[in-house]
Amino acid sequence: MPTTLHSPLDMHLHLRDGEMLKRVAPLSAYTFSGALVMPNLVPPVTSKEEILEYRSRIIKAIGNENFVPYMTLFFQPTYTREFLESVQDEITAIKLYPAGITTNSEGGVSGFEIGALRPTLEAMSELGIPLCIHGETNGFVMDREAEFVPIYESLALHFPKLKIIMEHITTKESVAALDRFENLYATITLHHLMITLDDVAGGMLQPHLFCKPIAKRPEDREALLRVALAAHPKVMFGSDSAPHPREAKECPGCAAGVFTAPIALQMLVELFESNGAPIENLQKFISDNARKIYQLTPVKKEVVLQKSPFVVPEIYDGVVPFHAKTTLQYTIHTVI
Amino acid sequence: MPTTLHSPLDMHLHLRDGEMLKRVAPLSAYTFSGALVMPNLVPPVTSKEEILEYRSRIIKAIGNENFVPYMTLFFQPTYTREFLESVQDEITAIKLYPAGITTNSEGGVSGFEIGALRPTLEAMSELGIPLCIHGETNGFVMDREAEFVPIYESLALHFPKLKIIMEHITTKESVAALDRFENLYATITLHHLMITLDDVAGGMLQPHLFCKPIAKRPEDREALLRVALAAHPKVMFGSDSAPHPREAKECPGCAAGVFTAPIALQMLVELFESNGAPIENLQKFISDNARKIYQLTPVKKEVVLQKSPFVVPEIYDGVVPFHAKTTLQYTIHTVI
Repeated sequence: MPTTLHSPLDMHLHLRDGEMLKRVAPLSAYTFSGALVMPNLVPPVTSKEEILEYRSRIIKAIGNENFVPYMTLFFQPTYTREFLESVQDEITAIKLYPAGITTNSEGGVSGFEIGALRPTLEAMSELGIPLCIHGETNGFVMDREAEFVPIYESLALHFPKLKIIMEHITTKESVAALDRFENLYATITLHHLMITLDDVAGGMLQPHLFCKPIAKRPEDREALLRVALAAHPKVMFGSDSAPHPREAKECPGCAAGVFTAPIALQMLVELFESNGAPIENLQKFISDNARKIYQLTPVKKEVVLQKSPFVVPEIYDGVVPFHAKTTLQYTIHTVI
Repeated sequence: MPTTLHSPLDMHLHLRDGEMLKRVAPLSAYTFSGALVMPNLVPPVTSKEEILEYRSRIIKAIGNENFVPYMTLFFQPTYTREFLESVQDEITAIKLYPAGITTNSEGGVSGFEIGALRPTLEAMSELGIPLCIHGETNGFVMDREAEFVPIYESLALHFPKLKIIMEHITTKESVAALDRFENLYATITLHHLMITLDDVAGGMLQPHLFCKPIAKRPEDREALLRVALAAHPKVMFGSDSAPHPREAKECPGCAAGVFTAPIALQMLVELFESNGAPIENLQKFISDNARKIYQLTPVKKEVVLQKSPFVVPEIYDGVVPFHAKTTLQYTIHTVI
C-alpha cells in the first residue's frame, strides 16, 4: 500500500548559493512544500535587500516547482525593533549562531551575555519572530550541545514569550529540556535519528557522515528517536541537509555537513515503519507540528511513496548523499 | 644546546610489507635503534617461517642501517608450549588483537574466555614471553578502551607472572590500571600525547589524525601526559606509526592510522621541553624503560637534535605524516 505525506516541510535547510543552489534547490523543491532556509552565506543574510535577493535566487533555481522558501535572517545583536519591523513580513525566523561554531558562522554571537542580546530578543519576542539557535559551546566536541542547554534554558526563562527552537538537537539533555520550558522547541535531522559517532568514526572514518553537531552516543540517538517516533508536539523535522562538493569532503579538513534532502522522505518512511511508529506520527513530525509551531499554511503537495527498492545515487551532481549506494525500501512514486 | 637521545626504541611500530615496507622502514631505522614490529600483515605472522621471512624483508628494506626489528607473533589461542619454545628465540613478544578491532585484525581473538586462552598464556608466562594487547571491546567508540580495562585486570590477576603490555593507551582508566597490577605495563604514542577528539573532529574532520584507539577527551590526554613526562617506569614510547597511502586516508572509509615515525623524536623533544620535563625523563620514556621491561640491550645509536626550525614534509613517498607542513622547533642534526 502506498504511503502519502501531505505538504512535507523541512524546517532547517541549507540551500547555499550560486552553482550549488542551482544543483540542490530543485531536489528539495520536488518533494517538500517548503523549507526554512538557513542564512549562513558568505556574507551572511543580514538585511532586507539580502533576504529579497536570496529568495529570488532560490525561486529562480527552483523553476516552476510548488515550493516556499521560508527565509531567515542571520542574528546580530545590533538589530533594532525598527529594523525587525521593516523585515518581519519577509522572514519566518532569525537564526543565531555562536561565533565560529559551524560553516560560515564567523560573524555569529560571541559569549551569551543576556544583557547584550536583550534589546533584539525583546523586540523579537514582542513581534512574534521565532529564534532558531545552533546550540553548541566551544567546549569538547562531545559535550558542546549538553553544555549549551543551560543557555537555552536561561534564554527561555528570560524571554518566556519568545519561541526558541533548539536546532538539530543530538543529545538526551536537549530532549529533556524540551519539556522543562513551554517556549523551547526543537528540530531533529534524519541522520541524527540514524547514526551515532560509531558510524562516523567507529569503523573506518566516514567523511560523508561528519556534521555539526557531531553524532553522539547510542543513548542520545535513542532519546531523539523516542520523541520523533512519538511525534512529540514540540519537535519538527529539519534535515540540516548541508551540501558540500565531494572534493571538500574527501580531503584533509573535511567540511561538516550531511546531504540528505533528496532521500529524506524515503528514509523517514522506512525508519518510522521499521520502528513500528504509525504513519500519522510521521505526518506530524514532517509537517503538522511545524505548521502549529510556526503558524504556517504550506502549499498543498501530496507525496506518494511506494514500497519498491530505491538505490541511493552515488552522487547528485557533485554532492555525495547520505547512505550513497544503499538500497532503500521506499521510492517516490508521485508528487501531486 | 643540542639534545642527545641514546638508542631510542619504538615499542609499537607498523612496518607493513611490500612497497610500503620499503618506503617506511628506512625512516624508522634512521633514528631508532630498534622497534617492536607488529604482526598484523595479511595473512598475519603466525609461524616461525613467517617471522624469519618477514624479518629478512625488513632488514633488506632497511639496508645498512644499524637497527633491530624486534619481532612479534600474532596471538592465536592454538599456540602450544612446544610451538612457543620453537619460536621463542626469534620473537620479543606476542601481540593479541580482539577480532575485527583494527587494521587486519580479523583473525584475532573473539571473546575473552580465560579458559580458552589459558594454555597459551600459561606457556607464555612460564617461558617469559610478554603479551602485548590492543585493548578495545567492540562497544561505543569512546568507551572501548575503558571497557577493556577489566579484561586487562582479569588477565593480570590470572597470570601474575605474565608481562602484559597495554598497547597505545588513550584513557585515564588505563593509566590508573598501571599501578594496580605489578605485571601491567603500557606503551603511549606521540599523537595521543598531543591530540584529543577535538583535533580529529572538533573543527573540520582530519583524516590524518584518525586512528584506533581514537583520540579521547582532554582529561585522558592529561593523564597520559602526566605519566609520560614523569617517565613512569612502566610506560614506554610506542609510536603505533601506521602508514597508509594518501588515497586510503582522504576518501570515504578512511583507514585508521597516524604516521609519526620520521618526526616522532623531534616532536617528543619539543613536547617534553615545552611541558618543563627534563630530557632525562624523555630518555627513560624513549628507551631506558623499555630496556628494563623487555630486558633488551639495543644497538648503540646517538641521535643529536638541534634547536632549529624543521618543517614537516607534506608527504613521505605517498604517506602524509602527522602534522604535515607544520614547523617544529627541533631538527635531527646527526645520528651516530
